[in-house]
Amino acid sequence: MNNKDFIAELAKASNLTAKEASEMSEGIVQILAEQLCNDSDVNIQSFGSFEVKKKNERVVVSPITRQRMLVPPKLTLSFKPNAAIKDKFK
Amino acid sequence: MNNKDFIAELAKASNLTAKEASEMSEGIVQILAEQLCNDSDVNIQSFGSFEVKKKNERVVVSPITRQRMLVPPKLTLSFKPNAAIKDKFK
Repeated sequence: MNNKDFIAELAKASNLTAKEASEMSEGIVQILAEQLCNDSDVNIQSFGSFEVKKKNERVVVSPITRQRMLVPPKLTLSFKPNAAIKDKFK
Repeated sequence: MNNKDFIAELAKASNLTAKEASEMSEGIVQILAEQLCNDSDVNIQSFGSFEVKKKNERVVVSPITRQRMLVPPKLTLSFKPNAAIKDKFK
């Protein structure tokens, strides 16, 4: 399901126009992004929690050149589903 | 940030009451859950995609009893952030 279909479903379920539903969706993404940028986890009820995790720097060896390279540390967004949503996929 | 604070932020950003914002959030979670239960991925613009993945069954050996046990296959919800959101955490 692409973003357009998702917006259409959301509009239908919430009695909104497609434009309003799209704005809601963008608003939610923006709130999530802001909070996560501020190093705060975000927990959504009966769904799960989003968290920014730091991956440490590490050394990799290229199998071809045998050269050792340092991969810099990076921040990644991770999602952990909670029990309520996990139960639905049993 | 817990669910209550998230709802309060969402209400403020969208000019909704806390109750309406909570209903929106629940509606979105419900749409996601329905689609994912029907084996369909969901892609949210400038955020990422949710997908149900099947983990195969596997054999584990208990280090204490040395007993071999079969872990049954299971479905898990995974999230893959897309480029737009990854860029915010650089």
